[in-house]
Amino acid sequence: MTEIEFWFEFASPYAYLAAARIERLVAGRPLRLAWRPLLLGPIFQRRPGHASPFQEPAPAEAAYRRRDAERCAAEAGTPLAWPSIYPRSSLLGARVALLGGDEGWIGPFSLAVYRASFVEDRDIADAGTVRAILDGLGLPSESILARATQPAHKARLAATVEEAMAKGIFGAPSFVAAGEVFWGNDRLEGAIDWALHPARRFPR
Amino acid sequence: MTEIEFWFEFASPYAYLAAARIERLVAGRPLRLAWRPLLLGPIFQRRPGHASPFQEPAPAEAAYRRRDAERCAAEAGTPLAWPSIYPRSSLLGARVALLGGDEGWIGPFSLAVYRASFVEDRDIADAGTVRAILDGLGLPSESILARATQPAHKARLAATVEEAMAKGIFGAPSFVAAGEVFWGNDRLEGAIDWALHPARRFPR
Repeated sequence: MTEIEFWFEFASPYAYLAAARIERLVAGRPLRLAWRPLLLGPIFQRRPGHASPFQEPAPAEAAYRRRDAERCAAEAGTPLAWPSIYPRSSLLGARVALLGGDEGWIGPFSLAVYRASFVEDRDIADAGTVRAILDGLGLPSESILARATQPAHKARLAATVEEAMAKGIFGAPSFVAAGEVFWGNDRLEGAIDWALHPARRFPR
Repeated sequence: MTEIEFWFEFASPYAYLAAARIERLVAGRPLRLAWRPLLLGPIFQRRPGHASPFQEPAPAEAAYRRRDAERCAAEAGTPLAWPSIYPRSSLLGARVALLGGDEGWIGPFSLAVYRASFVEDRDIADAGTVRAILDGLGLPSESILARATQPAHKARLAATVEEAMAKGIFGAPSFVAAGEVFWGNDRLEGAIDWALHPARRFPR
């Protein structure tokens, strides 16, 4: 069964839009979906000419992104209420999600985190919010949060970001299908086609 | 009749992909298509934190863009051979295209310039190439080139770039429909829908 990797960042509205539909698009197809949490901060910091860790996009581009995400959400029928803090820190969520990948609850957890941030305007950087999400899923929140913040686990998330960069990933959402990177919610269908139809692939 | 503006930059492969299909998508619909030439150089120069006029994208992103454009071209059935010089200067082409907008030949001229650069690997920054394209369209190339390089006409192209920025445009291709900006070849269908269906529009 072909695997498709879904690299997501909790701060990204486009990754939220992809998360909200990827299970439905993959369902019933011979594809194994791997949810892969990612942090864009360390990736953006290493861009050439990138003086500050959170370089502002041009104001016109920032305004456009919000409007475009709202239009895309409306077209897909996905609820979206722009967060009062944007971007929100995704660090704790990503650390917890990585454990969810080991233990089989990363999909529902990640969707709940996205909903908290992009529908309910809750502060996902706050441990209380993450704890409430875990509790809502019937998961042992205290032990998960304790494990998620251990130094070895933090290092594992950092190594995951390195793995993403080594694959050629520079933004989120990204999809990897048969070794090929696809970037952006609007490339999800293309990534699935690439995974499903080897005959349509062409060499570099 | 609703107007849809197509803002294009001759250096952009995604603008080429949009140019190659926009007339077909607009045909038979109650839309008036306005081809609007644009230079991205002066727009990028004014990005915040933009130290050099031609900041390099991250290497992974540059490699991705090429591969993604090639996949998009293959899927659309649009020929694309990556230019041996990239990006190519679009200044002369844009100056000439602006005259074509006044005189009704901007569409065929622009498609021929894109084809020269992205299919035939010809140097569209060279006046000889532009002259040959104009000649091929049966247009008076010498007088057009003379007019295109007059100071007042150069200033008009600069004013066009200001107009684009005032509309909120920051990249190419961009489409403007009913005052709304759509960015990217993959947003062309959305822009057309927006232009055609006022009832589906929602306020900011």
